[in-house]
Amino acid sequence: MNSSRRQILMPSNTMQALRKLRPAAGMNIESVPVPEFDPSDILVRVRAASICGTDLHIYHWDRWSASRLNPPVTTGHEFCGVVEKIGTNVTCVKPGDFVSAEMHLACGHCRACRMGQPHVCMNGRIIGIDSDGAFAEFVVIPESNIWKVDPSIPEHYAAILDPLGNAVHTVLSGPVSGLTVGVTGAGPIGLMSIAVARACGATRIYAIEVKPHRRDLAKKMGADEVFDPTVGDVVEQIKEATDGAGVDVLLEMSGNPNAIHQGFQMLRNGGRASLLGIPNRPVELNLVADIIFKGATVHGIYGRRMFETWVQTTELLKAGRLNLEPLFNERMPLDKYEEAFALLESGEAGKILFYPNGSK
Amino acid sequence: MNSSRRQILMPSNTMQALRKLRPAAGMNIESVPVPEFDPSDILVRVRAASICGTDLHIYHWDRWSASRLNPPVTTGHEFCGVVEKIGTNVTCVKPGDFVSAEMHLACGHCRACRMGQPHVCMNGRIIGIDSDGAFAEFVVIPESNIWKVDPSIPEHYAAILDPLGNAVHTVLSGPVSGLTVGVTGAGPIGLMSIAVARACGATRIYAIEVKPHRRDLAKKMGADEVFDPTVGDVVEQIKEATDGAGVDVLLEMSGNPNAIHQGFQMLRNGGRASLLGIPNRPVELNLVADIIFKGATVHGIYGRRMFETWVQTTELLKAGRLNLEPLFNERMPLDKYEEAFALLESGEAGKILFYPNGSK
Amino acid sequence: MNSSRRQILMPSNTMQALRKLRPAAGMNIESVPVPEFDPSDILVRVRAASICGTDLHIYHWDRWSASRLNPPVTTGHEFCGVVEKIGTNVTCVKPGDFVSAEMHLACGHCRACRMGQPHVCMNGRIIGIDSDGAFAEFVVIPESNIWKVDPSIPEHYAAILDPLGNAVHTVLSGPVSGLTVGVTGAGPIGLMSIAVARACGATRIYAIEVKPHRRDLAKKMGADEVFDPTVGDVVEQIKEATDGAGVDVLLEMSGNPNAIHQGFQMLRNGGRASLLGIPNRPVELNLVADIIFKGATVHGIYGRRMFETWVQTTELLKAGRLNLEPLFNERMPLDKYEEAFALLESGEAGKILFYPNGSK
Amino acid sequence: MNSSRRQILMPSNTMQALRKLRPAAGMNIESVPVPEFDPSDILVRVRAASICGTDLHIYHWDRWSASRLNPPVTTGHEFCGVVEKIGTNVTCVKPGDFVSAEMHLACGHCRACRMGQPHVCMNGRIIGIDSDGAFAEFVVIPESNIWKVDPSIPEHYAAILDPLGNAVHTVLSGPVSGLTVGVTGAGPIGLMSIAVARACGATRIYAIEVKPHRRDLAKKMGADEVFDPTVGDVVEQIKEATDGAGVDVLLEMSGNPNAIHQGFQMLRNGGRASLLGIPNRPVELNLVADIIFKGATVHGIYGRRMFETWVQTTELLKAGRLNLEPLFNERMPLDKYEEAFALLESGEAGKILFYPNGSK
Repeated sequence: MNSSRRQILMPSNTMQALRKLRPAAGMNIESVPVPEFDPSDILVRVRAASICGTDLHIYHWDRWSASRLNPPVTTGHEFCGVVEKIGTNVTCVKPGDFVSAEMHLACGHCRACRMGQPHVCMNGRIIGIDSDGAFAEFVVIPESNIWKVDPSIPEHYAAILDPLGNAVHTVLSGPVSGLTVGVTGAGPIGLMSIAVARACGATRIYAIEVKPHRRDLAKKMGADEVFDPTVGDVVEQIKEATDGAGVDVLLEMSGNPNAIHQGFQMLRNGGRASLLGIPNRPVELNLVADIIFKGATVHGIYGRRMFETWVQTTELLKAGRLNLEPLFNERMPLDKYEEAFALLESGEAGKILFYPNGSK
Repeated sequence: MNSSRRQILMPSNTMQALRKLRPAAGMNIESVPVPEFDPSDILVRVRAASICGTDLHIYHWDRWSASRLNPPVTTGHEFCGVVEKIGTNVTCVKPGDFVSAEMHLACGHCRACRMGQPHVCMNGRIIGIDSDGAFAEFVVIPESNIWKVDPSIPEHYAAILDPLGNAVHTVLSGPVSGLTVGVTGAGPIGLMSIAVARACGATRIYAIEVKPHRRDLAKKMGADEVFDPTVGDVVEQIKEATDGAGVDVLLEMSGNPNAIHQGFQMLRNGGRASLLGIPNRPVELNLVADIIFKGATVHGIYGRRMFETWVQTTELLKAGRLNLEPLFNERMPLDKYEEAFALLESGEAGKILFYPNGSK
Repeated sequence: MNSSRRQILMPSNTMQALRKLRPAAGMNIESVPVPEFDPSDILVRVRAASICGTDLHIYHWDRWSASRLNPPVTTGHEFCGVVEKIGTNVTCVKPGDFVSAEMHLACGHCRACRMGQPHVCMNGRIIGIDSDGAFAEFVVIPESNIWKVDPSIPEHYAAILDPLGNAVHTVLSGPVSGLTVGVTGAGPIGLMSIAVARACGATRIYAIEVKPHRRDLAKKMGADEVFDPTVGDVVEQIKEATDGAGVDVLLEMSGNPNAIHQGFQMLRNGGRASLLGIPNRPVELNLVADIIFKGATVHGIYGRRMFETWVQTTELLKAGRLNLEPLFNERMPLDKYEEAFALLESGEAGKILFYPNGSK
Repeated sequence: MNSSRRQILMPSNTMQALRKLRPAAGMNIESVPVPEFDPSDILVRVRAASICGTDLHIYHWDRWSASRLNPPVTTGHEFCGVVEKIGTNVTCVKPGDFVSAEMHLACGHCRACRMGQPHVCMNGRIIGIDSDGAFAEFVVIPESNIWKVDPSIPEHYAAILDPLGNAVHTVLSGPVSGLTVGVTGAGPIGLMSIAVARACGATRIYAIEVKPHRRDLAKKMGADEVFDPTVGDVVEQIKEATDGAGVDVLLEMSGNPNAIHQGFQMLRNGGRASLLGIPNRPVELNLVADIIFKGATVHGIYGRRMFETWVQTTELLKAGRLNLEPLFNERMPLDKYEEAFALLESGEAGKILFYPNGSK
């Protein structure tokens, strides 16, 4: 640690980073200069960084990646670390502080920002996608977006505040305490949403998921019942379980059109559906039966409320209300990235963590 | 008037009613007994009744009608009248009071009712669809659903509190004061929603409508700008008009899939869409771009909030804040119903009123 | 059981009831006819009934009692029981069902009722105060107010749904998940609110209470820290515990003016205060510092939302999320009422239960 | 204009400013350097500035002023102007743009800021109170707080966006469309709130005000009825006017304890009270009858929501929905400040405007 700390003080210093170098599939570890930073920025030494499905899309260079990224760029937007240095205008953290960051940068002046919704800023940029991110020894964060993390929160939990925040945002986009909840899709964020819903007083949580090991995880995270939507009529089963009413709240975490259909069908009249899962094509909805005559409220969920969601998320963690251990999988150095992406792609992985500055 | 009032006092008395007699197209005027009523019911002498699009569906006996109605039944669910007689338990109105009624009957015990959303009751029944309605000289209303109307409200306005309430429910399902609004579809309820939005402080109202005479009406009702969606790129035009942001609020009043697509595209990030128009088939939505990444809130709108919407609607009318005159069209006796349905079907009509007890 | 069941079938039958007979201190056990009931009413055989502070006021015939009650009247408004008989119009329960009831009767037609707030009906009446209540072998409940209780909920929990609903109403009158909470006053409803807040995701709960045994109970119910407001500066202590911010949510359950002052002082800027405790005189508030400049939101809490609160409360109980055992104290037959009131008055009791039909 | 514009380009340049020079009563016109500014700041040439009651307190050096201000400081926080120069990082405005500004600076990192409530920032600072303000030829505004004003909005309206925003914040802190409103206190902000409530669909507005000329103004601004609270029982009068219910919404704009009492008494069960007026001492409230048993919601109102209120306010002005002409009084050069303060103190003035760069 001492030696690497010394290095940063020298202008010629370099660091390892996992970068998208060319507009094509693949990524590379590269040695790059430790980034410079502005007076209102913070230089963070990355402790742990987590891989998001988006990183996999970037790795494969899908259509969305091609339309958005301008290589070369250092990837990675889920992380925690320790403040290494602060710009001269920075007052809210100091070197040594344990931090994470909201990687979505809002412009502050568009209509959405002005209406108190910077998470859907019309000019939003994302660190790790539109500029150099956290799959590196160091990352630069503007003070507006740094998030001080209570030292009592474990490092591996702090590394996934971004997707955990997605889950908290989804669950708490409407009332959930004392209500029944259906969760369609038990991938990592779906699983987190189960734990969050339970911690926030959801009384019966029904998880719908095709993969058996994810159904097992759903149970471990706090689902009361799990359903395989390929067996029998899951909508009828859930209606039966809810005395014919359907669930008060639908958390759509799959992006799968069938799951979306079933989710809306199992939603009770007057219920709330929060949609986070990202379908890869337009979805046909039975608007009349499933939304209009039902008097449903639907929330599109993107990112995290800035920064209510961060307050709620870190409060829940600090109070020990969320057991996320079942989610975690491999922890590896940055240079094992090919193995990591292969594992993620298998669909068997939970959250995979990189340790760019070496293991804990 | 005197003679007809005398009749009701005799048990053998009959009245004229416009009824669906058989499960097939058409309706008939029939002489039926003045209805009996329970101790908690109110017998209302109908002053004016208005034709809803639903009545046209029933007239033509479309698939929905065939699946729902059990002829014979007296149709009509938009009306106002004068209390003729009250049941022995009734306390909230007295003979001679000017009234209308919420025709959706809620069970009071399903999950939706218990959660304060009786307008989407799981066991809801509608007077004029599931039981005898208001296209008759008299109609029976349970005390729970009667609505006393201030005598200062004109009779023709009181006759359309049901669809006007749809408009008020749609507009006020979220904030609208100081905000920009797009209205897709300028049929009768769309037109009313323009007047309501304007009265409630919407600052710029953009109406999108194919038919020229409806665009003219939209202007008369208070739209700032009207657009023909078949000419040019209406989404771009509205984005331009809103400094690139899109509208804060979308009121979808058409049920037309193209309009729904355009509506969502013109909605700003973080905006609110309230859907009242009823598409006649499933609609393909670009969920990611139009709802999820946008962080949009979508409200399915059905009926009227019981009874917040009725309070708001009659308050606005009593205060003279709504000029609905451009909406009204023909006023005719009940037996001209074939002419009325033909006129409605032409798409050229506004609200058509029946006067079952003779003209005012 | 068999013999008493047989009695009810006979018209001449009588039952024991704890009644206020005269406008003066005291109550009496009296033998009265089993009540008759209307077609829309339900006759319930009381299993367990709980004593409220209000019953103590009635016992002592304080000024409020004298201004409101018209003796003779059977007291008691917290209870559970089993449906004995139903009126001919009743459909939502059947004999043998386990039930409780909302004892506040709303008129359905005043402005508050019409705006969806029947719990603050302007013409509200309370069974057990304005008409015969549940400190008796049988009580009559209108169908509108009956509440079917899941048989999995223990009888002694079902007997206190009324005050537990007060707690749920208070806690859930605004967001609480992921937030810090201060509770001033740890009497029975304050203690319940601690359990409810914790079950609904409050992350740090600070209870402020003068009596040591109640502070102990507060810990048992889930408070993270308890404070004796007579020792040191509790406002400063709580600000310290919350990083200088103060609590996000204040639940004022004491009615004590000092506690109210401290509560508002410990509330963070932009926080929410829900007031349930009933001061016995006007209270001087520092409106500028504590509410206006703070941008605080204050909710007056009365009764239970009809019936959202009942849904939430029974869902939480059914899911086993609330451990209320520390609250319960003596269980006694109806004729030990003097002992019961003395115990309640001592301030040492939790919830005391009567068993008018004999012990379980 | 030309010569003064030339001056700013020279480093030695000076300007006239109305300043608090010493911790004592009085103010002085002083010649001071045109302020320097940071890369993220904007230098604005002030067109019109308006006097706030707070400025009068500062002038007289009351207790609050003595505890807060650090002379010397240039006063004034209500203004509009034209961008003269921008810092190198500024992108959202350019020289020549017509602007105003939110003068409350939020820290961005306290709990209130993080919860989306920067208007009640725990570390808030106010330009014109804590640092040099707008009673000068030039004022410096950070980009975060600048507000671009549509050129169609008249200069004298743009100069009072700060207090008008107070009114909009108060009115729109809850629903108001289709509802009845009581306004206690018809000073400038109370009068503006009447116009705003009416523009936003309030249906009956009752203004309560002691001074006859203000009652006249209230009528001009859109009040339906005005009441002199010193004559008769105003609470009873308003209950009568609202069919016994009381008003749905109370806007407390006076800070007068009697008005506050009456306001809460005239609020209907379940109603909303928004408190903006600043009492100069603690106020005794009948919490039980007026808030708790009433199930009232009370909002403390401070500043303006950042920046929803600014969007709503400027949208309403741009759409021409607010006629504020009756509010305006004298327009004078900066050096007539003694006359201005005397006029304001008389209680007869509306909004008084300074023109630090000469008349329009």
